[in-house]
Amino acid sequence: MDIKQHALEAHENWHGKIEVVSRASIENAADLAVAYTPGVAEPCLAIADDVDLSYTYTRRGNLVAVVTDGSAVLGLGNIGPEAGMPVMEGKCALFKEFADVDAFPLCVRTQDVDEIVRTVSLLAGSFGGINLEDIAAPRCFEIEAKLKECCDIPVFHDDQHGTAVVTSAALINACKLAGRSFEDTRVVFSGAGAAGISIAKLLLRLGVRDIVMCDIDGILCEGDPSLNAAHADIAALTNPRRLTGTLSDALEGADAFIGVSAPRVMSQDMVRLMADDPIVFAMANPVPEIMPDEAIAAGAAVAATGRSDFPNQINNVLAFPGIFRGALDVRARDIDDDMMVAAAHAIADLVDDEHRRADYIIPDAFDRRVVPAVAQAVAEAARNAGLARA
Amino acid sequence: MDIKQHALEAHENWHGKIEVVSRASIENAADLAVAYTPGVAEPCLAIADDVDLSYTYTRRGNLVAVVTDGSAVLGLGNIGPEAGMPVMEGKCALFKEFADVDAFPLCVRTQDVDEIVRTVSLLAGSFGGINLEDIAAPRCFEIEAKLKECCDIPVFHDDQHGTAVVTSAALINACKLAGRSFEDTRVVFSGAGAAGISIAKLLLRLGVRDIVMCDIDGILCEGDPSLNAAHADIAALTNPRRLTGTLSDALEGADAFIGVSAPRVMSQDMVRLMADDPIVFAMANPVPEIMPDEAIAAGAAVAATGRSDFPNQINNVLAFPGIFRGALDVRARDIDDDMMVAAAHAIADLVDDEHRRADYIIPDAFDRRVVPAVAQAVAEAARNAGLARA
Repeated sequence: MDIKQHALEAHENWHGKIEVVSRASIENAADLAVAYTPGVAEPCLAIADDVDLSYTYTRRGNLVAVVTDGSAVLGLGNIGPEAGMPVMEGKCALFKEFADVDAFPLCVRTQDVDEIVRTVSLLAGSFGGINLEDIAAPRCFEIEAKLKECCDIPVFHDDQHGTAVVTSAALINACKLAGRSFEDTRVVFSGAGAAGISIAKLLLRLGVRDIVMCDIDGILCEGDPSLNAAHADIAALTNPRRLTGTLSDALEGADAFIGVSAPRVMSQDMVRLMADDPIVFAMANPVPEIMPDEAIAAGAAVAATGRSDFPNQINNVLAFPGIFRGALDVRARDIDDDMMVAAAHAIADLVDDEHRRADYIIPDAFDRRVVPAVAQAVAEAARNAGLARA
Repeated sequence: MDIKQHALEAHENWHGKIEVVSRASIENAADLAVAYTPGVAEPCLAIADDVDLSYTYTRRGNLVAVVTDGSAVLGLGNIGPEAGMPVMEGKCALFKEFADVDAFPLCVRTQDVDEIVRTVSLLAGSFGGINLEDIAAPRCFEIEAKLKECCDIPVFHDDQHGTAVVTSAALINACKLAGRSFEDTRVVFSGAGAAGISIAKLLLRLGVRDIVMCDIDGILCEGDPSLNAAHADIAALTNPRRLTGTLSDALEGADAFIGVSAPRVMSQDMVRLMADDPIVFAMANPVPEIMPDEAIAAGAAVAATGRSDFPNQINNVLAFPGIFRGALDVRARDIDDDMMVAAAHAIADLVDDEHRRADYIIPDAFDRRVVPAVAQAVAEAARNAGLARA
């Protein structure tokens, strides 16, 4: 049976990958009197007096909403809220299985920015955090920014920031392995969507100085009047040598390639344009920009992809469970850049000098050390930033 | 330790009465490939082709949203969404424990009708049903009516309809016990809020012809210009003898009293105004309109309350778990009056001629026969009404 048929049958058998269960056993009238009326009035009154007690007396403090509008689900595009649900349930299952975070999927039947923002913000009192998922760019930027402004709980767009954290961790270790100075690494992107822009911003925050972003039309350069708002914004922060031209032009002498774009846009000849022993992260799914063995054959020192069937999988599951675990543990009011930087370093540090190899720059998705390490680093960063409320 | 302190401690220990767990075991890369990428794309594509498959491949078909704005929580009033959460979690726990229905609480941070309607309707694709809870009248009527119009899944306001179903079931059996014709029973209400109006409407549907509604200002009579819209509506359907005056005036010769109002508004002398062997349902919580032993002492043939520490508890838990179980089982697009009538008869029928007594007109909340009987009756009624989609 192929994976497609197997996946369909498994989903039919699961009949939903998540389930809402009761933590209170309710077997008799005495149980009912405590968990429901009249006893339940007491925690209600306590929370009415002090809303922070909602973290003590309800599930809120361990609960994340996984929100999508179904507009950019996997690589499947705008398939709508109901069709996006299997991915959202999967995400919720991962939250629980990896980090004991309760997560609940909300697939919203609108693709209007303000309606999505309003809907989510009206529900913020029922959750301890918001994970945005598979929302198309550039709408996702606006939704995230507006929600961060109006919500008193962390808002995190995993497609942007989760990817950024894991990619950054991988690049930190790839540079160590290749004997490069991280800050001096010249990085070229293929793909300037939500993920690409977010990775670039986190790399800047981590100290990388020379990033060149390319999309399907070539290099993004400040001042180009054809750029949209998001591209103009990132162009102003990158491309310090004011390059113009194609991806190949950008790759001349570059140290690292980060692909978040489309299958097969990178050739071996393009790898050969790069500096000696280059780093090649080809993360398009399911078919990468260049197959990792081809990249290595063309001289790459390290190759990574988004796929589990090759070494060095850049997988968001290394980031989001631990990030939310840490944020919830300290009741963080936000997940800021410093917390993401801390998460990236925590992931990178799990692969130490002794174990680091070209085919092991990033921990395995099922490495049990990851979530506690990330959670601890994120919680500490939240405390240091004054974002922790507990 | 008193119940209050015990309830607080229990809630702190539960740290939320519900939990979102994974139904998919995700222990290795192969599991991940089926439950998440790349396998998850298959159910997504299937649902994109046929949105009804969301009931096959996701949890939707077993999932109910429990929605409140926190405006009328228990008898505590307008305590807000976060403070309402312990009740909503309790309700969700009951759904799961009684009927294996997954229910998830959404406490909305607005009390604007249209905002609540819009928020809930935008999420309707993530659920198989909507249970409205503890929303103040008359807003609750408008919210329910608007949601029923715009949602393709059942919308049910339990404070209205759950109470109506269980009260009707109790009255059916009380009439049998007292040897009264149900249709000819003259019923007087104290309380014309959401619950009172909904009970009255269901009794009319069940064939009762002479109902007199009273609120704090006395009898509701058609044509009284001081009535609000909801009261004018129910006044037009009730009070066929066009009585005016006080509750005592209404009670003269009445067969049954249904109290959904306030503590101690009924005296023994008022019971004595009623017909011989009257039926007295005093459901104000926690202190009823009249204590049941007082009602019996004043001549009542049957007394019922909302309390678990007296016989004949009129408890919504007899209705909502089975009603939603039945509605979800046949993927009903609505919960209509016929389904509620069926539920009321199913509950009443569980107390047969042989077992019916003055202190046993309604099954115990923990009677395991209730949910399957109600679910089956509701499912059949949905099929008969053409509301079943499966």
